[in-house]
Amino acid sequence: MRLVTYTLAAETPAPARLGVQLEDRILDLPALAAADGAELPADLLALIRAGRPALETARRLVADRVAAGADPGLDGHALADVTLHAPLRPGKIIGVGLNYVEHVAESHRTLDTGRELPDRPVLFSKPATAVTGPGSPILHDADLTKELDWECELAVVIGRRAHRVGEDQAWDHVFGYSIVNDISARDQRRSGQWFFSKGQDSYAPFGPAVVTADEIADPHDLDLRLTVNGEVKQDSNTRHMLFRIPRLIADISSGVTLEPGDVIATGSPSGVGAGFVPPQFLRPGDTVAATIAGIGTLTNPVVDAR
Amino acid sequence: MRLVTYTLAAETPAPARLGVQLEDRILDLPALAAADGAELPADLLALIRAGRPALETARRLVADRVAAGADPGLDGHALADVTLHAPLRPGKIIGVGLNYVEHVAESHRTLDTGRELPDRPVLFSKPATAVTGPGSPILHDADLTKELDWECELAVVIGRRAHRVGEDQAWDHVFGYSIVNDISARDQRRSGQWFFSKGQDSYAPFGPAVVTADEIADPHDLDLRLTVNGEVKQDSNTRHMLFRIPRLIADISSGVTLEPGDVIATGSPSGVGAGFVPPQFLRPGDTVAATIAGIGTLTNPVVDAR
Repeated sequence: MRLVTYTLAAETPAPARLGVQLEDRILDLPALAAADGAELPADLLALIRAGRPALETARRLVADRVAAGADPGLDGHALADVTLHAPLRPGKIIGVGLNYVEHVAESHRTLDTGRELPDRPVLFSKPATAVTGPGSPILHDADLTKELDWECELAVVIGRRAHRVGEDQAWDHVFGYSIVNDISARDQRRSGQWFFSKGQDSYAPFGPAVVTADEIADPHDLDLRLTVNGEVKQDSNTRHMLFRIPRLIADISSGVTLEPGDVIATGSPSGVGAGFVPPQFLRPGDTVAATIAGIGTLTNPVVDAR
Repeated sequence: MRLVTYTLAAETPAPARLGVQLEDRILDLPALAAADGAELPADLLALIRAGRPALETARRLVADRVAAGADPGLDGHALADVTLHAPLRPGKIIGVGLNYVEHVAESHRTLDTGRELPDRPVLFSKPATAVTGPGSPILHDADLTKELDWECELAVVIGRRAHRVGEDQAWDHVFGYSIVNDISARDQRRSGQWFFSKGQDSYAPFGPAVVTADEIADPHDLDLRLTVNGEVKQDSNTRHMLFRIPRLIADISSGVTLEPGDVIATGSPSGVGAGFVPPQFLRPGDTVAATIAGIGTLTNPVVDAR
């Protein structure tokens, strides 16, 4: 299933709703459940926390709906009529730096990172306040940065609490996949620490959907691509990850418990702005689009935030 | 007020309760409210979010209770009969590295940080999963670290959302103060990033209480001290902070929105384990006690977590 969080323009105030996207239609999950006499949580984080039975209920309701054919009362909304939001507010977002071989070389040339491939995942975090949804602005504050950069990343959404999980059990803890654009103000690293550089409001565009794990045959064979104003900047495949998803989950959960709804942003391939000669950085008016095969495209405008 | 979160051993399961500590007694705040026909949130994060009127109600109820004298029904519990927990689960904990002058020199000698005083606050974060309460174990996993270290820090608990708040308005956003012991596995820095080093489960002992801002005359004149097995390791005063609280709130909120219940761990004075010659690190069986004048003592045993 392709799960989305959306609002309807016609509603004021507009409550966030949990939907399933079928091509260009959005079905309202709690409404489907109500029509069936079933119960489902009203938001994605609660659905994830409710575990496998809730997910199976959702899957069955959608399958029944599709099998039953058109029904004006339950056909949901045209994608064009809804506003998509970040799928959920994660408890934590853990980012993985330097996790694509060519990006390690590029970063060493142009930033302050080492030449060698890291022997352990390089972990950092973004706070939940950094999350923004598809279509929402990436805030450009020229008083704080002249080096606003992009990074298209496969996001792993945790489904079950993971504490000291071995690589062989790691997949059981994955709920699904999405996209995070790991925005950085390169000139706001502080004594080398990335938190303020990568943790500012709007620096974690997230979405447009969470695709459940069963729909992604191989998360290590997904093309990913990022464009700025239509020009391709990053173009790679998740097979080039240095530390793969099971290793990341095992490594992180050896010390840091992962909870349902937490997000691992698995790192970015080469082609970040800082890596170009001369460097290219985001400016107000730009549009950034991050695409991962099977998940979709996460598009955000860059706006002047001053 | 000295606000605490506690459970009663007699209750199974034991729900977390919101209390006010008066010397060695704990008054149950929602119970006081119910007896008065008033309403108060059942936990500290909700109380903070409810804003000034809720805090004033709590203050009035406690004052009335004290004025009324002893009442067996409302006298609450002896401190010895309750288990204190972390006061709340913050949305985010933002740490400030290298924020005491002597600690900058010590870190430069013994860790990989620069010699110069930072010209901007050095920010990092710990996830909510790192929080543990007073008396709860600090987890020592010898498979992950041989360099587990301490740092006694004044914790600022945010009361009101802060987005681009100037230094002159910063105090309005402070709810109160507590203690964070900023535990680090020094050998788990990854390409210089502190997240895995400082973000593991139990690496943010927090408490024992949140003292409301009105009770701390000057947060920049508080003695702070840390002992390991009774031996004094850190002994300083918050007046030696490099970047003071208004500057920290202004700086962080210039890019990262602070929300009610968020915590700023304002940095540690010299006397961390890595700074001793030879270095001293925590081992299972140790007891660490972090004390800040006017707030209390946060004591945690170190236990073997393997």
